[in-house]
Amino acid sequence: MTSNFQRIVLAMICLLVTIGSSTNAQDLYATQRQGWLKKAEALKPALTETVKHPKGIVKLEKDPAAFQGWKAVPAGGIEQLYNASFDKRNSGIVVDFGEHLTGYCTFSLKTRRADMDAPLRLKLTFGEIPSELATPFDPYPGSLSRAWLQDETVTVSVLPATIIIPRRVAFRYVKIEWLGASRGFEFGFSDIQFKAVTSVTVTPPALAASTPDIIKDIDRVGLTTLKECMQTVYEDGPKRDRRLWIGDLYLEALANTYSFKNDSLTKRCLYLLAALSNPDGILNSNVFEAPEPHAQKSRLLDYCYLYNVALKEYVIATGDKQTGLDLWPVAKKQLDIARQYAGADGMMDYVKAGKEWWVFFDWKDGLDKQAPLQGSTIYALNQTYQLAKLLGKENEIADVPALSKKLKDAARKNLYDKTSGLFVSGTNKQASYGGQAWMVLSGVATKAEAQKALRTIVTHKDAVKPGGPYMYHYFVAALIETGMHAEAKTALTDYWGGMVNKGADTFWEVYDPADELRSPYNFYPMNSYCHAWSCTPVYFIRKYPEIFQR
Amino acid sequence: MTSNFQRIVLAMICLLVTIGSSTNAQDLYATQRQGWLKKAEALKPALTETVKHPKGIVKLEKDPAAFQGWKAVPAGGIEQLYNASFDKRNSGIVVDFGEHLTGYCTFSLKTRRADMDAPLRLKLTFGEIPSELATPFDPYPGSLSRAWLQDETVTVSVLPATIIIPRRVAFRYVKIEWLGASRGFEFGFSDIQFKAVTSVTVTPPALAASTPDIIKDIDRVGLTTLKECMQTVYEDGPKRDRRLWIGDLYLEALANTYSFKNDSLTKRCLYLLAALSNPDGILNSNVFEAPEPHAQKSRLLDYCYLYNVALKEYVIATGDKQTGLDLWPVAKKQLDIARQYAGADGMMDYVKAGKEWWVFFDWKDGLDKQAPLQGSTIYALNQTYQLAKLLGKENEIADVPALSKKLKDAARKNLYDKTSGLFVSGTNKQASYGGQAWMVLSGVATKAEAQKALRTIVTHKDAVKPGGPYMYHYFVAALIETGMHAEAKTALTDYWGGMVNKGADTFWEVYDPADELRSPYNFYPMNSYCHAWSCTPVYFIRKYPEIFQR
Repeated sequence: MTSNFQRIVLAMICLLVTIGSSTNAQDLYATQRQGWLKKAEALKPALTETVKHPKGIVKLEKDPAAFQGWKAVPAGGIEQLYNASFDKRNSGIVVDFGEHLTGYCTFSLKTRRADMDAPLRLKLTFGEIPSELATPFDPYPGSLSRAWLQDETVTVSVLPATIIIPRRVAFRYVKIEWLGASRGFEFGFSDIQFKAVTSVTVTPPALAASTPDIIKDIDRVGLTTLKECMQTVYEDGPKRDRRLWIGDLYLEALANTYSFKNDSLTKRCLYLLAALSNPDGILNSNVFEAPEPHAQKSRLLDYCYLYNVALKEYVIATGDKQTGLDLWPVAKKQLDIARQYAGADGMMDYVKAGKEWWVFFDWKDGLDKQAPLQGSTIYALNQTYQLAKLLGKENEIADVPALSKKLKDAARKNLYDKTSGLFVSGTNKQASYGGQAWMVLSGVATKAEAQKALRTIVTHKDAVKPGGPYMYHYFVAALIETGMHAEAKTALTDYWGGMVNKGADTFWEVYDPADELRSPYNFYPMNSYCHAWSCTPVYFIRKYPEIFQR
Repeated sequence: MTSNFQRIVLAMICLLVTIGSSTNAQDLYATQRQGWLKKAEALKPALTETVKHPKGIVKLEKDPAAFQGWKAVPAGGIEQLYNASFDKRNSGIVVDFGEHLTGYCTFSLKTRRADMDAPLRLKLTFGEIPSELATPFDPYPGSLSRAWLQDETVTVSVLPATIIIPRRVAFRYVKIEWLGASRGFEFGFSDIQFKAVTSVTVTPPALAASTPDIIKDIDRVGLTTLKECMQTVYEDGPKRDRRLWIGDLYLEALANTYSFKNDSLTKRCLYLLAALSNPDGILNSNVFEAPEPHAQKSRLLDYCYLYNVALKEYVIATGDKQTGLDLWPVAKKQLDIARQYAGADGMMDYVKAGKEWWVFFDWKDGLDKQAPLQGSTIYALNQTYQLAKLLGKENEIADVPALSKKLKDAARKNLYDKTSGLFVSGTNKQASYGGQAWMVLSGVATKAEAQKALRTIVTHKDAVKPGGPYMYHYFVAALIETGMHAEAKTALTDYWGGMVNKGADTFWEVYDPADELRSPYNFYPMNSYCHAWSCTPVYFIRKYPEIFQR
């Protein structure tokens, strides 16, 4: 062959290899992805905007009995701010808007004496709870970006002025500090208002009159939490992280189904996650909307499973099988995770998975993941098979029933401690609320075993308790699943009622009754105090009125 | 009379009294003021906008030999900023734009690795000279508003982003600090640029080839200073106070006449000050343009005098007698100040004036005002009479020649110390540069006396030196007035050359060679380092080429 001919042949071989590999491995959803994204964008809701005004002034007071040691005491009307000059003496004044809001703050200033002869500077700090405004932010000890904290400094050069704080904030209280002005004039606030946004437009029906007051309060706080988080996607928390995560979506959608019934938001989020999944078909755990929709390249194992459950719940709630069929390839693909780590003995290789994945389950250091992973895998297999049956796709995952049974048998054999009646996890045989919950929800435990395990864990000396409301959801769900209605009601009332009794306007991302300053981020003001994964009491209360509304 | 009749009569009397008093005292310029304001606004110049790019990076280094102990050392090109991620490690980087600029900064950021998953925060601090960026601003010890200092904090929530710093800044160097970001991604600068503004559009002719280099440098620095201060009015300083003061106007207009020749800006400012004067006809010392033109209600005695001189200089420079006639009533009225405080003995009651007025002359604690006030009063009377003659208005101030002579005779009698050959001021017989200058400019001193006084003061042990460039102008003017050309050249070269040799890009508001940290505001970063009242070397150099350009 001539050298030119050789070159041509070589080039063609390279081209064919490239085409071949790209067809096989380039994008599992190559033909669907753009369509999914368009559908998601077409479902983007308009946000309702409501102008809110301050309810009054509060004083922050230390109080060991108050949540995180600080409380807000009413200290008169907002006219105190409007009727006085603002200077060093009333610097630090705290304005209370009376409810948790998400949106954009505008304030107006005017000259009150003489003429402005120098710029002035203010700092506005927005806080969801009182302690956020009473805790110095610097030196900053936290692990996440310092810029999440909602303190904004504004220089004003001309009066009168109307200033819009450009960043969206989530808060109830705003502290206003005087950072500098000339002594040659006086100025003051003529107005401070807030444009609150949400995509929620409906009011759910009231609960039954027989509902205990604490349950009514829990429902109210849960609805506010969900409303604040329902923006153009289901956000995890409007202060932080302000975006769509699969696990939060799953719980928010459950609560939504029984309250605001904004199914199109659920549909949008399911399509968005699918559209922004990885080329290999595995989902990313969270996505950004701005500047254009894109994913954080971050895979979280248990969230991949929960996508399937969320899709199934959506199809059941709406009857929208078309969407189910459209997104079925994604749900099907996530099950490869189960197949990948299921050992020949039927036990999930949780050690290997933990090295290769972010395996979450809970903000809890030291939580052993073996039992939660085993249980949630079985659960995901089962739930996905149920979805397949709804859609007539069982034949595409024909191996699942057997795989599920194999994992279940292995769990019963390896993780059940007959003596204690608890399901244990890992080499140290850890007993956790999460482990029990997943063994129950997955159907590994019989009803009797489940009841025994759930009763035993709450008095078990070394029990690893939930790190926060997210895990508590699964625990309460397990109690209900197993018919322990009184215990479910007590758990919900104790835990979420605990937040309510500590003054929560919205439910918190993290709540440990024994340690109010707990933070996964090494700085509790960084915690989100309006986190949608904490709002599932709305789901429980409204789905099971026979348990909770009497 | 019936009681009704009595009421009517009483009401009519009140009405008449009100009309009478309002006609007499309400507004001396009632019929002209609106027209003056309209003329001023019609003369508002368009600003030229020029996009500027960084020249490179500098490192700030301590150096006792440098001005205020800090110098900026070139440290490579701007690509260091654009080609690297920005994080804690390069926080504090200083970008050099290579020249003093006034205007608006825009910077662009982009993601460099992974995805933005949290807001980031930066602080940009703009400085005119290196020490501004090396001196901590807090705890803030200064007397003026902390918000004058040009540090702006920006929170960015979405990338890529182009951020415009909203406030106008004046600077050469900008320090960029990293205040917080997530560890999950990297970002960097893709661009930083500056929209520089001025109302100057022309380049003045070059100086004679025979001009000494130091004089060329002084001229260049002076022209830059003036260009930076010529905005929609003659500003005193573009960092601070950013507005029109009479004294600065007077000196800037002198320099402008011999350089940029933007006479319409001078005309605008003269009309604006007139329009915003007090109802009793006395001028306010400074005015604001925003939100609508209005005065600071602040009277400064010597500045009222200087308005007249500025008006006279304008009419001579332009031949625009119409404006002279239009504003003549204002000039005429300022002379009432002289009449009010002139004692029967011909001495100005400087003590009473000092209690009832801000009597300025110089940023110099302890400067005795008697001689400056006496001299500047005579000077103002003389200059205003010259203006009157140009306009055919001598008859309206027919008392002025005699008054001026009376004050002059009194000054010679009371303030001249034959033994020392100095003019003295106040009960302690203080000898100051300012006192000598005003005695010379007013013509109180004969030529021989003037030369002797000006020679003697510079070696006089207890001489009160000028506090800054503003007073130095009058000193140099007095040297020129009295024919001491060599001394004028030396004074200009020494003083303003001192700033040039210390690296000044623009001339400073305050400069004391013996105390580089002097500040009237208790914090030298607050000083303006581009102050137009320091730019009069441009006037001297270009008006007197025979002295300065050889």
